[in-house]
Parts: sequence; structure tokens; C-alpha cells
Amino acid sequence: MKINVMTKVLDANDAWAAENRSFLQLRKMDMVNIIASPGAGKTTFLERTIDLLKDTVRIGVIEGDIATARDAMRIQKKGVPAYQINTGTACHLEANLLNTALKGICAENELDLIFVENIGNLVCPAEFDIGESAKIALLSVTEGDDKVEKYPLLFSEASVLVISKMGLLKHTNFDIDAATAAFRKLNKKAMVFKVDSLEGTGFEPWIEFIRSRIAKQPVSA
Amino acid sequence: MKINVMTKVLDANDAWAAENRSFLQLRKMDMVNIIASPGAGKTTFLERTIDLLKDTVRIGVIEGDIATARDAMRIQKKGVPAYQINTGTACHLEANLLNTALKGICAENELDLIFVENIGNLVCPAEFDIGESAKIALLSVTEGDDKVEKYPLLFSEASVLVISKMGLLKHTNFDIDAATAAFRKLNKKAMVFKVDSLEGTGFEPWIEFIRSRIAKQPVSA
Repeated sequence: MKINVMTKVLDANDAWAAENRSFLQLRKMDMVNIIASPGAGKTTFLERTIDLLKDTVRIGVIEGDIATARDAMRIQKKGVPAYQINTGTACHLEANLLNTALKGICAENELDLIFVENIGNLVCPAEFDIGESAKIALLSVTEGDDKVEKYPLLFSEASVLVISKMGLLKHTNFDIDAATAAFRKLNKKAMVFKVDSLEGTGFEPWIEFIRSRIAKQPVSA
Repeated sequence: MKINVMTKVLDANDAWAAENRSFLQLRKMDMVNIIASPGAGKTTFLERTIDLLKDTVRIGVIEGDIATARDAMRIQKKGVPAYQINTGTACHLEANLLNTALKGICAENELDLIFVENIGNLVCPAEFDIGESAKIALLSVTEGDDKVEKYPLLFSEASVLVISKMGLLKHTNFDIDAATAAFRKLNKKAMVFKVDSLEGTGFEPWIEFIRSRIAKQPVSA
């Protein structure tokens, strides 16, 4: 919500985000922030990514949800550490919550890479820097190709756009060219990957992208 | 976001919501508030509903979006008045914005029923009473059956749950029984409808529900 204390809140958040960046840099760790609608397939995307990366990269996951520890439990079943944040009512993760989570997950694990699964929301998570090196926007084809224009902040700030649920494309009226063109108007630089997480298709370029980031440690802001 | 001025913000919102309720009651109008994730199919659901109702019910639509007037334009093509609210960055509609929109749309139209399409977000819109007589929660099968437990406030407050995109059910791992059971734990009373808005299936009970509400004017809070 927009109120007159918003600037102060964002200043405090930015200070915590800077602290998180230092924490990660000192440990030569990378942290990426995955943001999408509820049900865009963030957790399934992460599960598949973990399967493909965990033998060569030491991964940890920080899960943000209003309620339940379902997602952290799903991730732990993949054999990697997961830390669940429950915000109760807050619609996004803030950097101070991440600070606690980072210290928690790093106290018990040596890690190269942390995936943060933000709360399912296309609006507020994009407004809060949590100290990540990249925002990964996920957009599922079942959501419609108009979402890029309707939620411009996330899509303009993302370093990567993952178009998900590609296997369902033929059953929808989603127009990949229209969505990509709308995205390019907001964002010239981001990589675009197309995947289906249940089928496990399209992951090679995404995995290659993550591997190349890890090879380039330490993290750049 | 949770900050110490939240109570005051909600108090002010509730005062505007009460004013909106009086405004509607004086004019014997009903207003329902449709809340769902981005891409759950709110606008397509509304388009189909308008097709089925507009010959007998005088409908107006208030569209809430961060950016663009796409949805209002889609609705206007159906031959009913639509008023677009763009919030810029705010992730939900508040009652004072609705007050302006209500006065705007009613200045030029005699209406029986207003549908509000809230901003695509499962979190914040449920926290703000806008003066509606009912919250309609939409959940598409492509979002996954865990969303009811993960976003409990909306699903506990809803008077109606519409499970949408039923035509895609066979292509997903969505479990209708699990979703319905989770919903019933939070909400004993709400009606549950299953539709596919592109195919136009399952709408009869929902249309009957809306018609019966209109017949019972004036609005109950």
C-alpha cells in the first residue's frame, strides 16, 4: 500500500538488502529471487532445476509464503536444504526477513547458490530489493499473454523471463510472439527461456545460464 | 505491508466502504468483488457472465489494474459500461477509489449489478472491504490445488468459489477433491461452481445464483 511512510520503509529495506549482499559476497554465494503469480509453477520449476544442478552446485532454497510449509517440504524431499518464511499477511518478502533466513540456512550448510521463491504475487515482491543478484520472472502460458503489460515493474526489472507450462500452450490462447514483443518493449537485456517443468523440457539453456553465473563468482550486484 | 499505521488505514478504508454500501443500497444495486491470481481468468469469466446476463440485468463493471485499460476495453466490447481504475503500484483496490468509480459509472448509467474485477493478487485485495456484498474467489485449475491452504484469507472470506479453466483439468495435476476439502475446512457456507469460460461450460448454476441475488434486492451486507 502507498502511504507516506513508504520511503522510510524502502530505505530501511535497502539497508538490509545491502547487508545481505555483503553477507553473500563474503561467502562467494549467489542468490536469485524468483517472482511470479500464485500457481505459475515456481516450486515445480525449482524442483526440476535442483534435479539438474544439485550434483555440481551446492543449492539452498528460501521459501516465502503467507501460510504453510508445503513448499519447503517439497524442496527438502529433493535433498537440498530449505528454509521456510511465513509472512502471515504480508504480500512480499523484505530484506530483513531474508537476513534471518540467510543466516539460518548458512549456519548449517556450505552453499554456492540460493534460490529465493518469493510469495506468489506479480506486484509487491518486485518493489523490494532483498539483496539478490538477479530477479527471475516466471510467467505461465495459462495466465495469458497480457500479463507483461499489466504488471510492468517486475518484467522491466527481471534479468530472466521464464515462460512456463509450455506443454499447455496448445490448449490456451497465449500468443508467445505477442508476449515476447511486449516484454522486449520493457526489457531489452533479459534472457528468455521456455520450459515445461512437469515434462522437464527446455531446461538446458536455463541450467547453462545458472552454471555460468556460478563460474563467475563472486556475485555482482 | 505491515506497519504501525495499518490500523488507521483500515479504519479509513472501512468508513469509505460503509459509504459505498449506502450509495448502493439507496440505488438498490448489488456489487460483488471478484478476486483471483493474475491470469486465473477473471475477465474471460466476466465476459461470459455478461453474455448470459446482460439482456435481463443492467450490469456495470469496475476494472482494477496496476496498468493498462485492456480489461475495461474488453468489457465495453460486450456492450456494458466499464470504468477502469489504474493503481500505478498499489496491489489492491481500496474503498475510496471505488467510491469515485461508483459515482463515475452511476452518473451515466442505471444499473442493477456491478462486478468489480480486483487487481490480480491472492493476498491484499482480500484485506480491504470495498463495500461489496460478496467476495467471489476464482481459482484456476492450472494454478494447483494447494493455493487454498497457501492463501487462506481470501478463501475463508469468499461467498463463492469459482473453479475456472475446468477444460484444462485433464492436462494438470490439480485434484478437485483435495482443493474442495481444503476449501471446506476454511469455509463451510460458500457456494462452489466449476466453469470453463472459454468453452462456456458450467455457467448455469452461477448465473442462477446471481439472478437470485438480484431478485432479493436491496443488498444485504
